[in-house]
Amino acid sequence: MTKSVLYAGERIDALYANDIKIIQSPQVFSFSLDAVLLAHFAQPIRKAKGLVVDLCAGNGAVALFMAHKTQAHIMAVEIQERLADMAQRSVQLNNLQDQIEVRNADLKDAFNYLTKDTVDTITCNPPYFPLEVESKRNPNEHLALARHEIAVNFAEICQISSGLLKMGGKLYLVHRPDRLPELTTTLVENRLAPKRIQFIHPKPGQEANMVLIEAIKDGKPNGVRVLPAIVAADEAGNYTGIVKELLYGKE
Amino acid sequence: MTKSVLYAGERIDALYANDIKIIQSPQVFSFSLDAVLLAHFAQPIRKAKGLVVDLCAGNGAVALFMAHKTQAHIMAVEIQERLADMAQRSVQLNNLQDQIEVRNADLKDAFNYLTKDTVDTITCNPPYFPLEVESKRNPNEHLALARHEIAVNFAEICQISSGLLKMGGKLYLVHRPDRLPELTTTLVENRLAPKRIQFIHPKPGQEANMVLIEAIKDGKPNGVRVLPAIVAADEAGNYTGIVKELLYGKE
Repeated sequence: MTKSVLYAGERIDALYANDIKIIQSPQVFSFSLDAVLLAHFAQPIRKAKGLVVDLCAGNGAVALFMAHKTQAHIMAVEIQERLADMAQRSVQLNNLQDQIEVRNADLKDAFNYLTKDTVDTITCNPPYFPLEVESKRNPNEHLALARHEIAVNFAEICQISSGLLKMGGKLYLVHRPDRLPELTTTLVENRLAPKRIQFIHPKPGQEANMVLIEAIKDGKPNGVRVLPAIVAADEAGNYTGIVKELLYGKE
Repeated sequence: MTKSVLYAGERIDALYANDIKIIQSPQVFSFSLDAVLLAHFAQPIRKAKGLVVDLCAGNGAVALFMAHKTQAHIMAVEIQERLADMAQRSVQLNNLQDQIEVRNADLKDAFNYLTKDTVDTITCNPPYFPLEVESKRNPNEHLALARHEIAVNFAEICQISSGLLKMGGKLYLVHRPDRLPELTTTLVENRLAPKRIQFIHPKPGQEANMVLIEAIKDGKPNGVRVLPAIVAADEAGNYTGIVKELLYGKE
């Protein structure tokens, strides 16, 4: 809780809804609404013997925000050493080191540190932008790796996730709706059947800018449920409803 | 406008928003909100030289409701003679016989009466239920053909539509969200790139029960826009917003 856990440029932010403190840095990585909504959407296995893996963990936001929903062990996998270090310090800041294990590793090597068909729940807030969108690439290498498919692409995430999950295990992810057909096709190609989909619209009357997807390994095809849309803010841009509640806690 | 255009069991209903009268029969076929919303969602080519085709036309609802949006010739293709006859009488009832041509034919034979790569806009409110859902099959053969993939399935509709459309031509369809991954995958496999998607929820807080999709022949992959969701009715079940306006006209 002291300043000593912070490096230059870092600050401690709080998610008031579940009293989590998290180390952030605008220069390196800050969690966004995407992580908050993914952690809320996910229904991780609850029992202590379960295994939950958060891929593309960044500064650990999803793992931290999800911890109160499960007794299971959570492994947060992050390729960037600097971000994994931030995540590790946030885990300690919240005294969650018995539950959350931060693994600074490439998810493509997952079968070196995890066993095939053993994971109950996977969450993932992946890089959103395909590599060909070069013009939009962030010149900051930390942010570029988090936002662009440089180190891993969506198909690889699906392959690895499908391999890690038990039959009937669930993958939860947040992504951009403009890639929706590719997302569902790639999931299905990897034995991951989309089951619940929820769209997030920034304001009333605006198009969706986020999509949450739950997929089940070896689930039956079709039978997708499209949940009521979440409209994040009112016309004036003030967060409303569940988003307000998640960010600021219940009034 | 007289009773003489009606057969036993038929009645004339009206879509007040655009003053269209339509012959219906609960025993044979009645249009539903799906057709109204599809006609509203579609953006048919406007110019008189354009060609619009409505597949799975039923009693002609989509073609009739869409007529005021375009100067183009509209061909409404319906395989069931009884329904095509209803559609033809409704076209005459609205004096739209110069614009709308009802074709009692199998859409699988489309290339016998339409030329490849010549259609600007296709609309389709197809049968929703795969054949394997046998238990739910309607014992009424007219309704069964309209609701179940007996005469044609979704992949065939996509193949035919893709063949008929010009490059850049648009397909508009309404379907069930539970088949969403299959729908988008099948569209893409047939060179039809989903571009706009809109979900319809029956009431606030309820899951979507309809999805509207616009796809462009040979359009670029991804870049899908998910429009604001339509919530058809309020908690009490009274139609609201655009749905109320479409069904009952502007107040």
